[in-house]
Formats: sequence, C-alpha cells, structure tokens
Amino acid sequence: MQLATILKGKPVADKISEGLIKEVEELKAKGITPKLAIVRVGASPDDLAYERGALGRSKKVGIDAEVKELPEDISQDDFIKELKAVNDDPSVNGILVFRPFPKQLDEEVIKYVIAPEKDIDCFSPINAAKLVEDDATGFAPCTAVSVVEILKYYEVPLEGSNAVVLGRSMVIGKPAALLLLRENATSTICHSRTKDIAGVSKGGDILVAAIGRAKFATKDFIKEGGAVIDVGINVDEEGNLVGDVDFEEAEKVAGMITPVPGGVGSVTTSILARHVIRACKAQNNL
Amino acid sequence: MQLATILKGKPVADKISEGLIKEVEELKAKGITPKLAIVRVGASPDDLAYERGALGRSKKVGIDAEVKELPEDISQDDFIKELKAVNDDPSVNGILVFRPFPKQLDEEVIKYVIAPEKDIDCFSPINAAKLVEDDATGFAPCTAVSVVEILKYYEVPLEGSNAVVLGRSMVIGKPAALLLLRENATSTICHSRTKDIAGVSKGGDILVAAIGRAKFATKDFIKEGGAVIDVGINVDEEGNLVGDVDFEEAEKVAGMITPVPGGVGSVTTSILARHVIRACKAQNNL
Repeated sequence: MQLATILKGKPVADKISEGLIKEVEELKAKGITPKLAIVRVGASPDDLAYERGALGRSKKVGIDAEVKELPEDISQDDFIKELKAVNDDPSVNGILVFRPFPKQLDEEVIKYVIAPEKDIDCFSPINAAKLVEDDATGFAPCTAVSVVEILKYYEVPLEGSNAVVLGRSMVIGKPAALLLLRENATSTICHSRTKDIAGVSKGGDILVAAIGRAKFATKDFIKEGGAVIDVGINVDEEGNLVGDVDFEEAEKVAGMITPVPGGVGSVTTSILARHVIRACKAQNNL
Repeated sequence: MQLATILKGKPVADKISEGLIKEVEELKAKGITPKLAIVRVGASPDDLAYERGALGRSKKVGIDAEVKELPEDISQDDFIKELKAVNDDPSVNGILVFRPFPKQLDEEVIKYVIAPEKDIDCFSPINAAKLVEDDATGFAPCTAVSVVEILKYYEVPLEGSNAVVLGRSMVIGKPAALLLLRENATSTICHSRTKDIAGVSKGGDILVAAIGRAKFATKDFIKEGGAVIDVGINVDEEGNLVGDVDFEEAEKVAGMITPVPGGVGSVTTSILARHVIRACKAQNNL
C-alpha cells in the first residue's frame, strides 16, 4: 500500500523566509527596519510558545520585535490605553494581540481599537471585511493563509477543486474557505450540525480540518488521493499532540497530508513576518 | 407529474410588513418615526424601479422616506459631503446608497464614509465584517436576507441541510452562503470556475441561484424535491424577465421554487424597511 506524501510545513516556511530576508535587506538599505509588536495579557503557555516562535522567526528574517506583557488583571481602560500607545508608536508596523482575553476585557470593543493597517492577524473588523470582500490589501488570519500557502507550495491544484473545510471559526474555518474561494476553489463549510459530515468531507479534493476535536476525521472523511490539511492541535489521552485528522488511517487513503506537529503550525510565523513586512512597506508607501 | 410548489414572495413580504406596522405604531406612540434616506446618483431605470418599491413599502409600514438625488457628474468630494450630511442628519435612521456609481466616484473610498449604524444594506465594511463574524447587530445585504426569510416562511428545513449557492458576489452569493451557515446549513459556494457545477448544485437540498446568467441552472442542477431560490433577474431574447434558473425545467424536478418575477425581488423592500426600523430602535437605545 502506498502511503500519502507528507506535506511538511518547514520547507514552506523556509522558502517564504528566504524571500522575506531579501525584502528586509532591501528595506534596511533604505534605513527601514520592520517591527512586530506582540501584546500579551498574562502568560499562558500557549501564548508563550507561539511568542517564542514568532520572536525566533522575526530574528531569522531580520525584523525587530518587542513584547508588551500586560498583567492578567489589567482593566479594559488600561488595556485600551496600552493598545493605543502601540498603535501610535511609529516604530511599530505590525501588531499581534494574543487572544482569548481574560474575562474583564471585551474583545468586541477592543477589536475596533487596533489600527487596521497594523493588524496583521485579522483582529480588526476592517480586515475581516477585506477578507470577505477579497480585498488583498487586508491581512487575513495567519493560520488560514498558511493553509493556502502549503497547498500552493506542494502544487495542489486549487482552481476548480472541491475544498471542504471542517469548522467555521473566524480564525480558521471561515477565512480558509474564503481564501480557497479566492483561489477559485469551490468551497464548502461543514460543522457540528452538518448531516453526513464524513460523506460531504469525502467529496473534497482538499480537506481542511479545523474543528478542534482530536482525530475527528477518520478514513471515511478522506477522498482517495485527496489533499488533507490538518489544522487541529489537540492533546490525546497519552499526552501526545494529535490533529483533527486520524493520521494513521488518513495516510492510507489520502494522496497528501500535513503532519501534526510539523505541518500548518510550522508555517504561521513566516506568514506573520510576511504581514509585518507588507504592513511596513504600505506604511512607508513602498 | 407533480410540479414544484411556487414560493411567492408577496406573502412573505406581507407577513414581515404586518409585524413592522405594529413596531412603527409603538415607536410613533413614543414620538419616534423611523426614516429612510435613499441616496441616488443620476436616474437609472433600475434604481428608479427599486426606489419606487422602497418608497411604497415605507409608506405601507408607516416610516418616512426621502430621496437625495444627485447629479450624474457629481465629484467625489461633493458626493462625500452630501453623504456625510445624511449621516449627520439626526432625523435619518437608515441610508440606502444606490450602486454601481458613475466612474468618477470611488466606491472603495465611499464605503468607509457611510455611517455603519445607518448602513442598512451592507455597504460599509463594518457591516461586511459583522456578516462574516455572525454579529447580529450588523445589517446584511437585504437581498441575501430575503433568501433566508423566504426559506423560513415556507418552513424549508435549514439546519443540517446542504445549501449550494451559485455565485460569489458581495451582494448575494457570499452573504447568502454565510447567512445560511449561520442557520446551521452546510454551505457550498459555486462559481464560473467550479468543475461539474451541475453535479455540485444537484447535491443541494437548497439551491440559491445568483450567478447572473439567464436560465443558467437547468434541470440537471436541481435535486429532486429540493428547494430552489432564484435571485437572478435577466431579460431574455424576447424581452421577458427570466431568472438564473430554467423555471420550466426546474419546476418538474424541484419540490419548491421561487418565481421570477414575484419571488425574492418582492421581499427585499420589506427587509429594507425592517432594517430601517431596527436601526432606528438602536439609535434610540430601544
């Protein structure tokens, strides 16, 4: 039996980073260094892990990065004051705000505060609008962009393909479906209420799993020879990281599949860095 | 052979209007009369036809309406000045801006000018964002809302159904797919690049045709017993109004189908009026 080709994220991230390194060199020759600001409330292990990745990637591609760490019990007013200070800091080109917030902070209010032109991970409604309006000047969520970049890197045909997305979050499901639609795929969004979710998924030349349940997509979800992008990150009973796809079953049916870990998650920080550089160029009219 | 049930728009509009009449009476008892402002550049027949419908509906439900007619050759600056005046007019609760604009007006700039809380037909990016974010305080495009209202009125099951939308415009295709997803349908968006578009469409318990091509969806697109919502308005070679669905073929296969004219188009102005009233209530903290 032939197993699916493993679509690792690292070569994708490396290729993107290579291009970014050159772009940054050109900017530095003009006296400009792009800068990322991370706004973090408290110190959750998830945030810290992603932050380490983002800082490492920033260093690798040559952009500056700073972290604004705020106390877990910061008030809404103080948070907004701090975020506005980052908005107004001319040295900062891109802002990543970690979510979810502690209870006292109202995301529905705060999302209108972040400067849309510095909002590199689609927190601002202006970027959500640009996502649905297919306005390429916007910043789509980095993870959703990573899904598309992996498919492009491995030359999976997108135009005219049937793309099925499991999950309808604003972080992955909906943006991935909209970005694939932008690439002329036929996009279907499935969710917990979908009838015959396995049958619908099996129709997908491309299956993007982002439903947040360990090993949810079994072999019955997979089209023979199809491409499977697993965005899930779950911890199973034995403490292992597993995706939303049952990898061992799926690799026997799919033509290509991303691993977890080492797949989509390896690409997001390079997209983040790319967005910072694009924001920097736009802010400098380049 | 049993033909499909015809889903007329008028009873849907009448039922919505009935409810609105009561709401307006309650507002008037408080000394508040909701008001619609229509902003029209030039005098295209399409705009004038829709305007007559909107004014008639406003009168029927008891809300005020005014039309700001602007010259075809108005400059961008003057247009923005006029739109801001309507934004700032405290007597106006809802604003409908006719599009497309003449060439000298840049929609991409103007859409950021309309006050989001008065933007009752999803012109503002803030309402586009609320559409994709499932924020019910936003105003989705009236025609897309009409599609969902017709399905609800005729008790077509939405939850868990497969909804296929033909077309991906910001006026119908994408919003209809997102609103159906909000009702827990499984949404698929097809378009001109979709492979086997008939086959994909045929999988739809609900088929929404909004692709802008006369009689595009033949009987091969229709699921036996399915519900067909035809949003198209085209003029055929003999000068007749026809939809995007080949009605004569489709009614032999479908379980239910909207006529053209007399279907979706009959419902939109009642949604417009509903949005004006909702905007009015929100602006009065009611």
